[in-house]
Amino acid sequence: MLKALLFDVFGTVVDWRSGVAREAASFFAERGVDADPVAFADSWRNKYQPAMEKIRSGGRGYVALDVLHRENLDATLAEFGLEASFDEAARRELNRAWEKLPPWPDSVPGLTALRARYAIAPCSNGSIALMTWLAKYGGLPWDAILGAEIARDYKPQPAVYLASAAALGLAPAEVMMVAAHNGDLDAARAAGLQTGFLPRPREHGPGQTTDLEPASDWDAIAADINDLARQLP
Amino acid sequence: MLKALLFDVFGTVVDWRSGVAREAASFFAERGVDADPVAFADSWRNKYQPAMEKIRSGGRGYVALDVLHRENLDATLAEFGLEASFDEAARRELNRAWEKLPPWPDSVPGLTALRARYAIAPCSNGSIALMTWLAKYGGLPWDAILGAEIARDYKPQPAVYLASAAALGLAPAEVMMVAAHNGDLDAARAAGLQTGFLPRPREHGPGQTTDLEPASDWDAIAADINDLARQLP
Repeated sequence: MLKALLFDVFGTVVDWRSGVAREAASFFAERGVDADPVAFADSWRNKYQPAMEKIRSGGRGYVALDVLHRENLDATLAEFGLEASFDEAARRELNRAWEKLPPWPDSVPGLTALRARYAIAPCSNGSIALMTWLAKYGGLPWDAILGAEIARDYKPQPAVYLASAAALGLAPAEVMMVAAHNGDLDAARAAGLQTGFLPRPREHGPGQTTDLEPASDWDAIAADINDLARQLP
Repeated sequence: MLKALLFDVFGTVVDWRSGVAREAASFFAERGVDADPVAFADSWRNKYQPAMEKIRSGGRGYVALDVLHRENLDATLAEFGLEASFDEAARRELNRAWEKLPPWPDSVPGLTALRARYAIAPCSNGSIALMTWLAKYGGLPWDAILGAEIARDYKPQPAVYLASAAALGLAPAEVMMVAAHNGDLDAARAAGLQTGFLPRPREHGPGQTTDLEPASDWDAIAADINDLARQLP
């Protein structure tokens, strides 16, 4: 029986691209910097998977995503020729852009409906701190904060899904992983979890080509989180 | 600046004695057992500190409180001569009494008021699972679930307070530990946290003699959680 839902967060629950671009734009305006904040957000995010891969492969011990975000921010500022415009305090503050991402319009009502029937928690690569402050920013009504920091590894390593289910005292089959990314669900299914897909066709902007459709027979396939709440018992 | 409040839970936020006694009474009635459910609750709880002490002292690796509760339940059933009345399934179910404890009347409104201004989380010796299901049972509006399982050790070890603050990305001085137990606050203060005391003079029933008053000049001293919410900025 399904008892809990774990959610991917960046892209699935919140719109990271608009949120990071908005924060960057605000910092650029304050400094009179002429740079494209959306391109800046994309460049920052593009360093996300390679940074985690070093940890997943065992080449580096676990550090929280906040640390990786900060290293990637420094690299992105260098790429954009903006190093001189951002001192240490500004970099720390801009790094918190990831705590200020807008939920998609269906996220808060959909999660609220699901929370009445299931335990709900993020199973994100974000840290407990990042997920907690992001939830406070957007009003995300989680029951607990699970994910990478519980496992001290990064998705799609099976330990992250398994540790998150175990932290609720549940067997993997009692838990559904919900994501807008087929690869996340491939890994969750391999770990024994149920799977729920919903598309976020604008996560990467108007030209998105990935994850527009479910790539497998996931246990639930929904239009958004509200629709998922209608479909599940 | 104060950014988060960590709460002791058993006794401070929920009435474990009434809750466990009520669950035990229900199990006794179903089985026609003549035993005092309040004495049973007290006897079960009396094994709590010695069980954790083995782990705190390094004599045993970390296991979640659910495991200790179950071992202590088995011992308590033996003491009361009730072993034959409780099969494995019944023991598992009765062990979940700790997930069904009533909040004190001020807990939900007080926490709700505080949550609008601070991050709030349990810093309990209970596991993530136990704290999550207990919160769902009683409507406790936590932002995250912190405490013993994050640190893989038990209060009053300093690691539990420090790991809980660190999991929010905060320095100890930015966090207040709130408890109805002076000893918990002694340890939190030694770890560098702010401290808030509120008495729960009926936690142990009508004859309670401990923790009736604050034993030090804690940073906040309140009548209950509602009063704490009124006092804090």
